Amino acid sequence: MNMTELDTPAALIDAVQMDRNIARMQKRMDSLGVRFRPHVKTSKCFEVARRQRDAGAQGVTVSTLKEAVQFFDAGFDDVLYAVGIAKAKLPQARALRERGCRLTIVVDSLAAALAVVADGHGFEVMIEVDTDGHRAGVRPDEDRLIQIGRTLHEGGALLKGVMTHAGGSYALNTPEALTAMAEQERAGCVAAAERLRAAGLPCPEVSVGSTPTALSAHQLDGVTEVRAGVYVFNDLVMANVGVCGIDEIALSVLATVIGHQAEKGWALTDAGWMAMSRDRGTQAQALDYGYGAVCDASGAPIEGFIVSSANQEHGIVSWRDGSVCPDIEQRLPLGLQLRILPNHACATAAQFPTYSVLGAEGSVTTWERFHGW
Amino acid sequence: MNMTELDTPAALIDAVQMDRNIARMQKRMDSLGVRFRPHVKTSKCFEVARRQRDAGAQGVTVSTLKEAVQFFDAGFDDVLYAVGIAKAKLPQARALRERGCRLTIVVDSLAAALAVVADGHGFEVMIEVDTDGHRAGVRPDEDRLIQIGRTLHEGGALLKGVMTHAGGSYALNTPEALTAMAEQERAGCVAAAERLRAAGLPCPEVSVGSTPTALSAHQLDGVTEVRAGVYVFNDLVMANVGVCGIDEIALSVLATVIGHQAEKGWALTDAGWMAMSRDRGTQAQALDYGYGAVCDASGAPIEGFIVSSANQEHGIVSWRDGSVCPDIEQRLPLGLQLRILPNHACATAAQFPTYSVLGAEGSVTTWERFHGW
Repeated sequence: MNMTELDTPAALIDAVQMDRNIARMQKRMDSLGVRFRPHVKTSKCFEVARRQRDAGAQGVTVSTLKEAVQFFDAGFDDVLYAVGIAKAKLPQARALRERGCRLTIVVDSLAAALAVVADGHGFEVMIEVDTDGHRAGVRPDEDRLIQIGRTLHEGGALLKGVMTHAGGSYALNTPEALTAMAEQERAGCVAAAERLRAAGLPCPEVSVGSTPTALSAHQLDGVTEVRAGVYVFNDLVMANVGVCGIDEIALSVLATVIGHQAEKGWALTDAGWMAMSRDRGTQAQALDYGYGAVCDASGAPIEGFIVSSANQEHGIVSWRDGSVCPDIEQRLPLGLQLRILPNHACATAAQFPTYSVLGAEGSVTTWERFHGW
Repeated sequence: MNMTELDTPAALIDAVQMDRNIARMQKRMDSLGVRFRPHVKTSKCFEVARRQRDAGAQGVTVSTLKEAVQFFDAGFDDVLYAVGIAKAKLPQARALRERGCRLTIVVDSLAAALAVVADGHGFEVMIEVDTDGHRAGVRPDEDRLIQIGRTLHEGGALLKGVMTHAGGSYALNTPEALTAMAEQERAGCVAAAERLRAAGLPCPEVSVGSTPTALSAHQLDGVTEVRAGVYVFNDLVMANVGVCGIDEIALSVLATVIGHQAEKGWALTDAGWMAMSRDRGTQAQALDYGYGAVCDASGAPIEGFIVSSANQEHGIVSWRDGSVCPDIEQRLPLGLQLRILPNHACATAAQFPTYSVLGAEGSVTTWERFHGW
């Protein structure tokens, strides 16, 4: 199939650029001497994960038990479920392990550790460490880090190590700040591991990561593995953070111009927020792209145009600076195909049941992705 | 199944409240003397649409051709595709009509009208009218309204009428402004119809609607049908607009508390933005609910708590005023189920492949919804 034959809106992967993104990250991880465990919540697609594995990735990171089941069934048996486990989800996690999945779960409280131990299964468990105040986790210097470790270890769980995610890195935009955050993430997680070991507890694994820190770390001494997700596609938020160029974004939404409001300088497309997602991640960044940056069908940016507003199935394309494009009907005529670059690839990809994958030779194939919990 | 057995996050419909919302709207439309054509983009669920039809609705409104196909296959043969048709989608629209679907399509430009006529099929077509500057459409007083009408009529299409959507009503929040907008929507669309008729063109149908205007109109003289979607569930945006109460919201996300950051007054849940959607529709309204309002498992609001921030699979629940809840671990303990009311029901529902439907007797059944284009 050719791109012009696609029904729009469609989630278009530029496979050549995606392969470059995969190779870039793997090469970095190899040179830093760490294993790489991609976060597959971004793509929820086996073909994407296989390319990551073929490039050298080991295991996968998931954000839901559904992802764990789906990827295990597709042949990925080394799975880290990187969200604090709810007690009610332990039976599902246990069932998956009993089917042969090397599933690791995560806790960040004594109550959760006690629930895991009470199950009696002997789970492999990591303790989540908070290295940037962003979300979940135990701070490296808290007493309860040792209490949780001891509870797990003495209760019959396999204390596999510590993990952290410096999500605060998404708010940065200079190489210096990113490198400092990567070092903070590394040092905090290693410190937590050393405290556990000093207390006589096992802690073989030290797992860190986010796309911005993974692409900014100068050294990862003491770290055994890195996790990152969105790097596989990249997006406008990552471009604003400064870890990719606009031309390194491998995911776009193929849209069609369906109308105009010429007096306002608007072109309307069939890619509204249902296609782009409601993510407005660039709103708080230096360059606000609205609901997306506008490129022509070949992927070349059409300078100055963004999706300035969106309804469910309508995108409104206009000049970023708010002025009225005087010849919008000529510049973006009815029926024209556009590629819209997303703010946040994880959110935009989730709006689609399939990807349309554009290969080097110009033909398009379809890859499935899954949805829900 | 009982609600406590559900895997979380889950999209929970309170069927009793949904039925009340359906009855309220249908009663209004009956008393105003107009047909009601619900917009099924909100639910994308046959069971919901059947309840709307059983209450008296006639036909459905859709926002994509996939919805048109799905609903036609489920027995809804009177379908208005309320988004300006792209030329590339005409073959699909024609195929659906040739299967027996009474599909009506929409245009708002001479170029689109010419494309429809060139197809030669004899489509049923409505002209989209712009009554509030919100999005698409021809203004009632523009010369091209008559040109488009004449092009369709003389070119062999069936000119079925005019339609408009006063999406600008979402930005209002007083009964007076809403009633004025409803009258503006009505008067503008009727004026367009009268201009077409005065030019000797047929215009039997005058279709208007949005949930806020449908629930605020005092009279609909000259209107033949009304369309509305989100009223079936309601949401926090509609509560802020003032057309429903918080207790009239029939859709919520069932979540589980998975952790805490006690010093910050945070409870973490497993309903992040992947479950709630990225919609922040209340951000610009009088009362900002973050990513959602927090209720207990019975649906009663827990005053003061909102989902103040969200990651992909983590929701952060804290006090709305930004102060630190001193006993968050006791008030919202690990494992607790919560219902989170959404900003925008259309966006939140779209994140889920199924609904968990809570009936009057407390049992839960599953309804499918579809996804994609």
